[in-house]
Amino acid sequence: MYKPQALSETLRAKIKAVKLLITDVDGVLTDGGIILDDAGVEYKRFQVKDGQIIPFLKKFGLAVGAVTGRDVAVVKRRCEQMNLDFHYHGVKNKLELINRVLVERNLTLEQCAYIGDDIIDLDVLGKVGFSAAPKDALPYVLDRVDFVCTLGGGKGAFRELADTILHVQGTLSEALHRLDIA
Amino acid sequence: MYKPQALSETLRAKIKAVKLLITDVDGVLTDGGIILDDAGVEYKRFQVKDGQIIPFLKKFGLAVGAVTGRDVAVVKRRCEQMNLDFHYHGVKNKLELINRVLVERNLTLEQCAYIGDDIIDLDVLGKVGFSAAPKDALPYVLDRVDFVCTLGGGKGAFRELADTILHVQGTLSEALHRLDIA
Amino acid sequence: MYKPQALSETLRAKIKAVKLLITDVDGVLTDGGIILDDAGVEYKRFQVKDGQIIPFLKKFGLAVGAVTGRDVAVVKRRCEQMNLDFHYHGVKNKLELINRVLVERNLTLEQCAYIGDDIIDLDVLGKVGFSAAPKDALPYVLDRVDFVCTLGGGKGAFRELADTILHVQGTLSEALHRLDIA
Amino acid sequence: MYKPQALSETLRAKIKAVKLLITDVDGVLTDGGIILDDAGVEYKRFQVKDGQIIPFLKKFGLAVGAVTGRDVAVVKRRCEQMNLDFHYHGVKNKLELINRVLVERNLTLEQCAYIGDDIIDLDVLGKVGFSAAPKDALPYVLDRVDFVCTLGGGKGAFRELADTILHVQGTLSEALHRLDIA
Repeated sequence: MYKPQALSETLRAKIKAVKLLITDVDGVLTDGGIILDDAGVEYKRFQVKDGQIIPFLKKFGLAVGAVTGRDVAVVKRRCEQMNLDFHYHGVKNKLELINRVLVERNLTLEQCAYIGDDIIDLDVLGKVGFSAAPKDALPYVLDRVDFVCTLGGGKGAFRELADTILHVQGTLSEALHRLDIA
Repeated sequence: MYKPQALSETLRAKIKAVKLLITDVDGVLTDGGIILDDAGVEYKRFQVKDGQIIPFLKKFGLAVGAVTGRDVAVVKRRCEQMNLDFHYHGVKNKLELINRVLVERNLTLEQCAYIGDDIIDLDVLGKVGFSAAPKDALPYVLDRVDFVCTLGGGKGAFRELADTILHVQGTLSEALHRLDIA
Repeated sequence: MYKPQALSETLRAKIKAVKLLITDVDGVLTDGGIILDDAGVEYKRFQVKDGQIIPFLKKFGLAVGAVTGRDVAVVKRRCEQMNLDFHYHGVKNKLELINRVLVERNLTLEQCAYIGDDIIDLDVLGKVGFSAAPKDALPYVLDRVDFVCTLGGGKGAFRELADTILHVQGTLSEALHRLDIA
Repeated sequence: MYKPQALSETLRAKIKAVKLLITDVDGVLTDGGIILDDAGVEYKRFQVKDGQIIPFLKKFGLAVGAVTGRDVAVVKRRCEQMNLDFHYHGVKNKLELINRVLVERNLTLEQCAYIGDDIIDLDVLGKVGFSAAPKDALPYVLDRVDFVCTLGGGKGAFRELADTILHVQGTLSEALHRLDIA
């Protein structure tokens, strides 16, 4: 049987309320690697497992987006490939932007889950209903989140979080039998 | 002396029946990394050890193929480089396709081994004679396979599986003395 | 609460004196990987976390530079992207160059921290006020430094060192509340 | 103090006799990764630490070469960059070639050290005076070598072997004080 991390009843209640999952990019969808060549072109290594769960999240009524402080072409490519509902780049104040997204979608902070790994994410992590970080996030980020993934950024941390949400919301077992979704 | 994982008699019987080894690609022949550049070109990191065992598998009468749900040029390149007997890309229903391959080759599901790591592989893993997963497969995949590799995808999981099959079938020790094959 | 490595009073005094942080590149800002293509172009994988702390170091009065024995275009790109105060490439005698930098900046060796991982760094590591190495540095380098990072090169070793300096100098907690800096 | 692996007197005698160090490439100078793009171009990730020790090996009278079964342009690039004494590519019978190299250089198998990780290396590993493998070599290779590195291929296994040879031959401590060599 699939057994995710043990979760308190309080935490399960928080997770059940989630309608929107927002992710940071560098350090969450990647292991923080910035690959450059002589000409300054930037390459990135994403994780196939993270993308494979998006159709299931959507099918079961969750919106999914990305918000990143950096602004590089390759990240836009991956966000499009993952078919995210929205993705914002070069965002200096993430909390402000996310509040705007929530208003547009008629959702509250309690209905929002966020995963991030660095200082720029601290404000958002302190406000959303369900906060998470990959296991290799900065130590002061790990201290402040509801859920620390057993996996690192780019190694499946996002997938682990998504699976946990689907599991607690009671839709994961259906996903495991619904190949028509992917 | 070379000692692979301890295997039950039941499992050894399953392995002895294998005539065809089919592998998933992302997460098995790779660690799940999707490397992109600004222009959206996809790069992949495969493992030399996985390719080096193919001539031995063939020499000892096993067919080897790949079936993947994604459809990217770089994977075709690697499949050709590995000199696989067949490789199918962009496959939505893997079980259906594999059943067709088996009919063509006059083989049964009992004679087929399959290694995969994600939801799309569950159906096939539940039907073939011998099922395996890399150690970093999704947890609900690990739960349902006959054999969990000690190595992860792209780190030699496929090679470990191939070596285990050759070992149980009694041909690995011959391989270790037959440089003319490689 | 954020708890860095336990540090002796002597070491804390050394760290408090630091005004300038200098880093080696290969093996510190990277995991030592030299990625090449057919044409001999060199690619490198840096770590986003290392770059994210630079504005904070500067804001709190620390200068930051890089000194490397190799001379490749991609490293210059990353140093510019990180907005370092200075970066020298193809340096054969690092101690000589660093002494010159200190004179220009009216600083002493006691006010200089240095992180490096190989033989070429030993001279400098033996002279500066505060010496450090990533955990995967050569063993005889690890033997001779004040501070061994818990993280490896390219995995956040530089960031760990920078965070430790800010923490001991009493500015890290302010950084965690100052998003306007980054 | 630098403490390498504990070595028996027999092994130390073997290492003292070494005059020539030959390395396999894929899986030793790399972690076995074969990085491909859409067009089939092959990229490789080498380790800076492996290259940094070559001038010291040469200075202290050791010749260094590479022999690989594959034949790709990027490996030639790295061998040239490392300034190896010789490098042979696309070699099917490594033992035959190495015997020829030894005759040319008026050396014996006892004076030759070799590090490799796969089936193709077994013959050579069984014949040379001092045999080694990276820790992530195939298990039946690990079984047959004099020295198993604590580091994996592409992570510094070659450097660890080179440092061990210099240490046992009594020249490593001199290297640590001779920056003019590198």
